[in-house]
Amino acid sequence: MQNSVQKLVNNLVNSGIKNKKIEITCTIDNVSFDIQDRSIVGNVIQEWFGRWMTSKKIHWTAPSNTQTFPDFFLNGSDYLEVKAYNFDESAAFDVANFKSYIESVLITPERLFADYIIFPYEQKGNFFYIKDFFVSNVWEITSTMQKKKSGLITHQDKKGTIYNIRPYGSIYSDKTKGFKTRRDFIISLSKTIDYFSKQIIEPHSPFRNGTDWLRLVESSFLKKFKTPL
Amino acid sequence: MQNSVQKLVNNLVNSGIKNKKIEITCTIDNVSFDIQDRSIVGNVIQEWFGRWMTSKKIHWTAPSNTQTFPDFFLNGSDYLEVKAYNFDESAAFDVANFKSYIESVLITPERLFADYIIFPYEQKGNFFYIKDFFVSNVWEITSTMQKKKSGLITHQDKKGTIYNIRPYGSIYSDKTKGFKTRRDFIISLSKTIDYFSKQIIEPHSPFRNGTDWLRLVESSFLKKFKTPL
Repeated sequence: MQNSVQKLVNNLVNSGIKNKKIEITCTIDNVSFDIQDRSIVGNVIQEWFGRWMTSKKIHWTAPSNTQTFPDFFLNGSDYLEVKAYNFDESAAFDVANFKSYIESVLITPERLFADYIIFPYEQKGNFFYIKDFFVSNVWEITSTMQKKKSGLITHQDKKGTIYNIRPYGSIYSDKTKGFKTRRDFIISLSKTIDYFSKQIIEPHSPFRNGTDWLRLVESSFLKKFKTPL
Repeated sequence: MQNSVQKLVNNLVNSGIKNKKIEITCTIDNVSFDIQDRSIVGNVIQEWFGRWMTSKKIHWTAPSNTQTFPDFFLNGSDYLEVKAYNFDESAAFDVANFKSYIESVLITPERLFADYIIFPYEQKGNFFYIKDFFVSNVWEITSTMQKKKSGLITHQDKKGTIYNIRPYGSIYSDKTKGFKTRRDFIISLSKTIDYFSKQIIEPHSPFRNGTDWLRLVESSFLKKFKTPL
């Protein structure tokens, strides 16, 4: 965990954020209702988190395009992603768009150091509650698939098209399933590139297959950090 | 426009919904703030719309899986989709996942009769405002792309992978850009299938190319509705 994130975590623990109620209310034309739609909770928690950091005098910035990685910069350059998911279901948020991730990690291997702060929440009655929070590296919340996709990174696909890198479902209750190292994570990504190569490799791609891509990540990482991937 | 939707529109007009304020407030740990994140407004409007219909004693149902099409059924079988977008930007909501749409329209050509009720909204200060609303067919809010993708349906892609059917940007101010007929819309989809065939056609696909698919839609439509597409 980056130092800046460790400080933030200490602050969150001191704030006693566990089990706090999240009330989301919509008022239109003098009629108010509590929003029940879970699909907005992740965005709401992210917006709240920026405001919470500001209230704690934690300095942060964000990319001008809010669609791009990461959600927040701490200390100007530490990467922080904020994720949330319904504690009563398997974790299934988008870690990153698969194609964007494999391209950007070549250029910006710093992404591998990003911390993910994750808020499982519960829905009880009309309200949501922050169940807990934890911080993980990207390789600790992802894992390999089983059966015919054995060895591939956990991901979302729609009708055979790969969309997003996803976490494994039990990231809260079973910490042993994640990858042990960032290298294992990268190797699984390279296998996933080969499996979906028809969708992933294009004429202009700087790699022809997963192994090519792995070598490029290794050399990009070594060049930037003077240490092997 | 389906009769059930026409009734609903009359009701909305009578309610004077134009320019109404949408206030979305989040409270966590006794701290409240107005949510500014535009990405949740579409979901909030959809949830509000269900509640609004209920308050007007308009009977509706929804698919058990909220991720599937459509958002609402009226009269048990009339399809209604609810969309919203920021009036100060080009319309860019997801009409439908491309791959899912072309597969499902073969099985359920009823989708072509779906009404889309669309709410452009504005963001002013801390709040959102319903700018207006209108109802369109799917072919009236989509159009063909220009330049090297000439003839293809307006869509979103990410790094060369097609994701969603999208509207053309000026659906509010320029009603002339949409397709004139559902058949023109289907023809543009078939061209788009050919352009992205590597991503779309799979060994188990019931069609080998866009023309194949077009023929299948035509026969499915004719069989069900006893009238040509």
